Amino acid sequence: MPQRSEIWLDGTPTVTLPLPDRGFDFGDGVFETMLIHQGAPLFADLHLERLSLGLKALAIPDCIAAARQQLDSVTGAIHGRWSVLRLSVSRGSSQRGYAPPEDAVPRILISVSQLDRDCGQISTAAKLCFANIRLAMQPYLARIKHLNRLEQVLAAAQVKAEGVDEAILLDQNGHLASVVAGNLFLVHEGQLLTPKLDNCGILGTRRRLIIERWAPALGLAVRESTLTLRDLQAADEIFYSNSLQGVRPVSRIGQQKWDAHGVCEAIFQRYQEELR
Amino acid sequence: MPQRSEIWLDGTPTVTLPLPDRGFDFGDGVFETMLIHQGAPLFADLHLERLSLGLKALAIPDCIAAARQQLDSVTGAIHGRWSVLRLSVSRGSSQRGYAPPEDAVPRILISVSQLDRDCGQISTAAKLCFANIRLAMQPYLARIKHLNRLEQVLAAAQVKAEGVDEAILLDQNGHLASVVAGNLFLVHEGQLLTPKLDNCGILGTRRRLIIERWAPALGLAVRESTLTLRDLQAADEIFYSNSLQGVRPVSRIGQQKWDAHGVCEAIFQRYQEELR
Repeated sequence: MPQRSEIWLDGTPTVTLPLPDRGFDFGDGVFETMLIHQGAPLFADLHLERLSLGLKALAIPDCIAAARQQLDSVTGAIHGRWSVLRLSVSRGSSQRGYAPPEDAVPRILISVSQLDRDCGQISTAAKLCFANIRLAMQPYLARIKHLNRLEQVLAAAQVKAEGVDEAILLDQNGHLASVVAGNLFLVHEGQLLTPKLDNCGILGTRRRLIIERWAPALGLAVRESTLTLRDLQAADEIFYSNSLQGVRPVSRIGQQKWDAHGVCEAIFQRYQEELR
Repeated sequence: MPQRSEIWLDGTPTVTLPLPDRGFDFGDGVFETMLIHQGAPLFADLHLERLSLGLKALAIPDCIAAARQQLDSVTGAIHGRWSVLRLSVSRGSSQRGYAPPEDAVPRILISVSQLDRDCGQISTAAKLCFANIRLAMQPYLARIKHLNRLEQVLAAAQVKAEGVDEAILLDQNGHLASVVAGNLFLVHEGQLLTPKLDNCGILGTRRRLIIERWAPALGLAVRESTLTLRDLQAADEIFYSNSLQGVRPVSRIGQQKWDAHGVCEAIFQRYQEELR
């Protein structure tokens, strides 16, 4: 059964989407998943910046001001300590066919669900498998959080079937890409490594905060690079980042185990300080 | 402005889609575009066969019997000579997150629009450009007609901007893949060549009919192979196939021109005979 969630379309409560909609027809749109803490969306500016990047990449008319306004209006009424908010923008309606209309009127859909977990505490260390599916490489769609997410759906089905917490996703060349819902980090000889996102993967907001703010504050440099399974095996510590968990330590991938979680815990502390 | 179209959800007329829906959220579903001739869907069995292939690939519960029944019910009421019907199946509703629910209840959405063009006549020869975007290679999603179609949306935007009829899509390796909305065929020294669909592209119903029925009837063998730009340049004749046009001759791609359309016209004749 679906979790209880509330939905707004262009600022008005709804339970339905007008048809036709290009978000449904082609996945023609982008979205953000935001953590809401006591009615306030965390790092909303970073989310809206990435949303804007996605709209530009798809040439969907700019609707960031409206998205911000609806976000404020919806979150102002949220009760409960932790919630998750999904803000989706579709290109809206159009006549039949792939070609986007010149007069597109984007639709903004916001849905909010309460979270039971205390997101202010670090998650237990995660067990991962290797996803069977490898991410396709598409520079035109890499980095943005668009609505074409079948690869993640298939990988998440495997995660569920194997009873683990997450999965390592490789790209078609066999390089490390990400986890299903988050960005991957390796600690190697005191340096933080994370996959480049030139061909696939999403430009995570927490990934950005780690690179620009949290790792530097710990005196750690982050290097975005082309990483292999060998790099994974040689890593002293592994963790991943996403909007709901901040950073989460990894204790096992396939048969290999990791006991060290010090860097992840130190980064989580920086994150925790921003929650206050 | 959207064309006038009528929409049915699970057999009932509607103008909206219940939310949440995984078709919108992740493009988690598949679809078919069928040509309707005087109330009868053309090659419905082939369409439903491909739909079934897609449902299996995505592990969406089988709903082919219901799809067939709704298709029959809707098309029985269609007036006008030529219409286009889109039948979409989404995995339906679920709680938040990528993982598909075990108890998914697929939704079947059918929309019908009238066509002005006489689809019983061959289309004028098409002018094509080369799409800037190259198709990503994803064996798990190749061949099926899923709802993740942003690559086609971006290529179709270029087609529109350049004022041409279609575009040649290459894959990430630079091999010929397809056109935006259809499959590609080259005639070379009396043989018919079409790109393999192992890594990208859609298993077109008309492509299948050409390979299995229409080309053999003309004494032509079709070879599915890895094709390059050099093969394109060396081709004696070029055409593409899709549900709405059957086959359509190509007169120009970029700067190169083709005058020969004999094979395409002969195949269109076979197709025309099936329309009667």
